[in-house]
Amino acid sequence: MGSKYIVIEGLEGAGKTSARDVIVSTLKESGVNEMVFTREPGGTLLAEKLRSLVLDIRSVGDEVICDKAEVLMFYAARVQLVETVIKPALAQGQWVIGDRHDLSTQAYQGGGRGIDQAMLATLRDAVLGDFRPDLTLYLDVTPEVGLKRARARGELDRIEQESLEFFNRTRARYLELAAQDDTIRTIDATQPLEDVMQNIRQTIMAWVQEQGA
Amino acid sequence: MGSKYIVIEGLEGAGKTSARDVIVSTLKESGVNEMVFTREPGGTLLAEKLRSLVLDIRSVGDEVICDKAEVLMFYAARVQLVETVIKPALAQGQWVIGDRHDLSTQAYQGGGRGIDQAMLATLRDAVLGDFRPDLTLYLDVTPEVGLKRARARGELDRIEQESLEFFNRTRARYLELAAQDDTIRTIDATQPLEDVMQNIRQTIMAWVQEQGA
Repeated sequence: MGSKYIVIEGLEGAGKTSARDVIVSTLKESGVNEMVFTREPGGTLLAEKLRSLVLDIRSVGDEVICDKAEVLMFYAARVQLVETVIKPALAQGQWVIGDRHDLSTQAYQGGGRGIDQAMLATLRDAVLGDFRPDLTLYLDVTPEVGLKRARARGELDRIEQESLEFFNRTRARYLELAAQDDTIRTIDATQPLEDVMQNIRQTIMAWVQEQGA
Repeated sequence: MGSKYIVIEGLEGAGKTSARDVIVSTLKESGVNEMVFTREPGGTLLAEKLRSLVLDIRSVGDEVICDKAEVLMFYAARVQLVETVIKPALAQGQWVIGDRHDLSTQAYQGGGRGIDQAMLATLRDAVLGDFRPDLTLYLDVTPEVGLKRARARGELDRIEQESLEFFNRTRARYLELAAQDDTIRTIDATQPLEDVMQNIRQTIMAWVQEQGA
């Protein structure tokens, strides 16, 4: 079985960090030892600087980043990560476990902000070509549950401070896209933590077996 | 005559700053007094930060910015400038005089770096829609002449340190695009400065008269 790119997606507070730990331990049981971890936006010097800019600029000045500029910065960070980190790791036989990838842009910017879906798809195809994750685990929580967990961890950043309606639209787009794409598996992440982790473990085990078959 | 967006384009050392002074004095003679000046990449808080990133990152670290990330950062800076500065100024009746705009990306990235022209056109249309300058003055110099002038002014930045072949390809694309688009007027900028300035003055005067007609 060749190296694979697995992405974890979901609203803030969906439990992405815990999910990663379960994915890693499950993959190790399956004999996968070489893993690289990424997060988006970020993961390279340039991408981290873009992340800071997009998340912090309102605290630097009073300038409001327009929707399209925000999307373009996410794609600049993403393509830099894909070209300089993800593709080279996969080529060397390492698995890549990503905290967010393109589906976040489709859900947050397309769903949450209402940016034209066709434009986002055009950008994605122009920038990424046919590069896609092999598997995406979408951890589905209601915004109420997710935000309660995120708030318990401390400060929320600019994007996290959006309204509840924004997150409802984002979740709806996540669910819509997951239903259309069989490389995206939806996990009910509002269940008790033990059950969620068990579900992720089983999903990964089954998927790995499918790949080997 | 409504407000207009005039862009000055050309290789480093083509004489864009002197050209701007002549354009301003010529427009004032024609009764245009409200003018706003922009430069790209830059011109807003976000855009200036992106400008610094794209020009300086190799001196911050050893990371090489991939071609597509560079293009996306230029477009992020551009759309922020267009939406927050240029369009509002035009809407208020001010003329906008720009030092570089989209034609630079088509020439430097498309011609110089050889990035796929169709992808650049797709990005431009997705990001800017049908927004275009009313007039572009392309100051045509050979790279030899331009770089000699630019070096005489001091340090060259990352993009200016490209090879002579890069600038030859950039110039060729500028000339090709100028020949296809009648909103772009080409000025022979290798002539003596006095002649170049006179040529710009006459071009602007004639164009303003056409607009009023």
